Amino acid sequence: VRAGAAGAASERGADEAPPDLGRLSLNQYTTYHWSVAEAVEGCARAGLGWVGLWRDKVAAQGLRDSVRALRETGVHCSSLCRGGMFPAATAAERAARLDDNRRAIDECAELGADTLVLVCGGIHHGGDVAAAREMVWDGIAAIAPDARERGVRLGIEPLHPMFCADRSVVVTLGQANDAADRLNEPFPADDPTVGVVVDAYHVWWDPRAGAEITRAGNRIFAFHVSDWITPLPAVLEGRGMMGDGWIGLREFRRAVDRAGYRGPIECEIFNRELWEQAGDAVLELMKARYLAHV
Amino acid sequence: VRAGAAGAASERGADEAPPDLGRLSLNQYTTYHWSVAEAVEGCARAGLGWVGLWRDKVAAQGLRDSVRALRETGVHCSSLCRGGMFPAATAAERAARLDDNRRAIDECAELGADTLVLVCGGIHHGGDVAAAREMVWDGIAAIAPDARERGVRLGIEPLHPMFCADRSVVVTLGQANDAADRLNEPFPADDPTVGVVVDAYHVWWDPRAGAEITRAGNRIFAFHVSDWITPLPAVLEGRGMMGDGWIGLREFRRAVDRAGYRGPIECEIFNRELWEQAGDAVLELMKARYLAHV
Repeated sequence: VRAGAAGAASERGADEAPPDLGRLSLNQYTTYHWSVAEAVEGCARAGLGWVGLWRDKVAAQGLRDSVRALRETGVHCSSLCRGGMFPAATAAERAARLDDNRRAIDECAELGADTLVLVCGGIHHGGDVAAAREMVWDGIAAIAPDARERGVRLGIEPLHPMFCADRSVVVTLGQANDAADRLNEPFPADDPTVGVVVDAYHVWWDPRAGAEITRAGNRIFAFHVSDWITPLPAVLEGRGMMGDGWIGLREFRRAVDRAGYRGPIECEIFNRELWEQAGDAVLELMKARYLAHV
Repeated sequence: VRAGAAGAASERGADEAPPDLGRLSLNQYTTYHWSVAEAVEGCARAGLGWVGLWRDKVAAQGLRDSVRALRETGVHCSSLCRGGMFPAATAAERAARLDDNRRAIDECAELGADTLVLVCGGIHHGGDVAAAREMVWDGIAAIAPDARERGVRLGIEPLHPMFCADRSVVVTLGQANDAADRLNEPFPADDPTVGVVVDAYHVWWDPRAGAEITRAGNRIFAFHVSDWITPLPAVLEGRGMMGDGWIGLREFRRAVDRAGYRGPIECEIFNRELWEQAGDAVLELMKARYLAHV
């Protein structure tokens, strides 16, 4: 264990819980070339009870077929990636993004996933980063009532700061928690609609990660694992399999457990080398590494 | 202006100061293939009064020759890169790193540079990230009296979080300011020995950058500029010329000015394409972009 959730690792309690394969979920981009049906069936073959789906793959499979694949195998959808991308140059374009997020909420509900993962958007429209952040908060506020109505939760995923320009101006758990504080005001404290996605790859460097995981508490809606390998093979597609890099994943899992999270743990790895391997072999490796390192 | 030092841009005052070529400094890695003598002479030809030097280049030139080149041209050394790299697996290796930092302090004094830039080190020795951070603070505390004695200031440079594993576990201005608070206790508040280097490339994504620049105040020892281009061409050598990317450099310069910094502004760009161009042309482009964007 090398780079855990700083400051949160020394307490007792959930520290001692063993990793549990019953919580492991395959985020389907880990087996990028698999369709939704292939990913769901692969999980069933591997004995996994959870799969994280992506909207482009669901669209390619068809929403109805995707729902059927889940129902027939008994595999549950742990989350849907992704909503978000709120900042845009014009009001009309921002409104179109909100409509798209509402469609994502509907898909999430149909798939039986309780969390829509929000990748909030960058500044590629030419905007100021502070203004883009306001567009993000306004966008989440606008769709939160729709999510609530459909029984879907919105998980703000802070991305690694290296994605600040092109993918997400939300780059720390602190920002996401601050936003969740405000955006949950209309909702009961014990049943929040806006929360955070803790992806160890995105937040492991943050000296405040441990404290912000504790603060997030019942607003942790998802937990993603992969590893940070060096030299980084690529900015977007350079994630590593758990155990191949520098993140103290067990410390992260313990910190998230201590904060009260009991849900699935998604393994989400964008890596071109991994994508060339057979999906079933990737799942076996993922299970072994999960047990050893998460 | 797109992504400035959030929250610090709306005040008055230094906002109105025009950019001043008298503050522009060439960090010599921007013209990577130039020796120290070539960089110093290039600055003189371009009418620049400052150059930021690197220890490997000074060693190749020879310290005495480097000092002579500065004296003969009247170009001043704005900072020396780099000290740091404190974390290591054994006490003996950590002590050797301290010795090397003390040599860097001596070189800095010889070159007449008042700031040694600290790139603090990562976790490649196999260490825990929290423990590595403690090694950094212990290391700076150990060399601060030596720096003080030689009239050299230690500038902690938070690196972008994408360098956390291999180059610096110090990744935010908040961390660096916290450390400076503690490490300056032996020294007068109006003449600190430990401070921060604000490099816009490394900190522009941070929602707290503006507040932490204000907090740094008279502990801002250097200010570096370049730009964040997308898609990022490479993790290490993918920086852009000012104006080619997404950082609101003018807002950063104004924020640093408002905090009281009056020193040189170093242009430090690691970029392979730029390195293939003729040095004199790079300096002319740098001057024009500085005036337009910083």
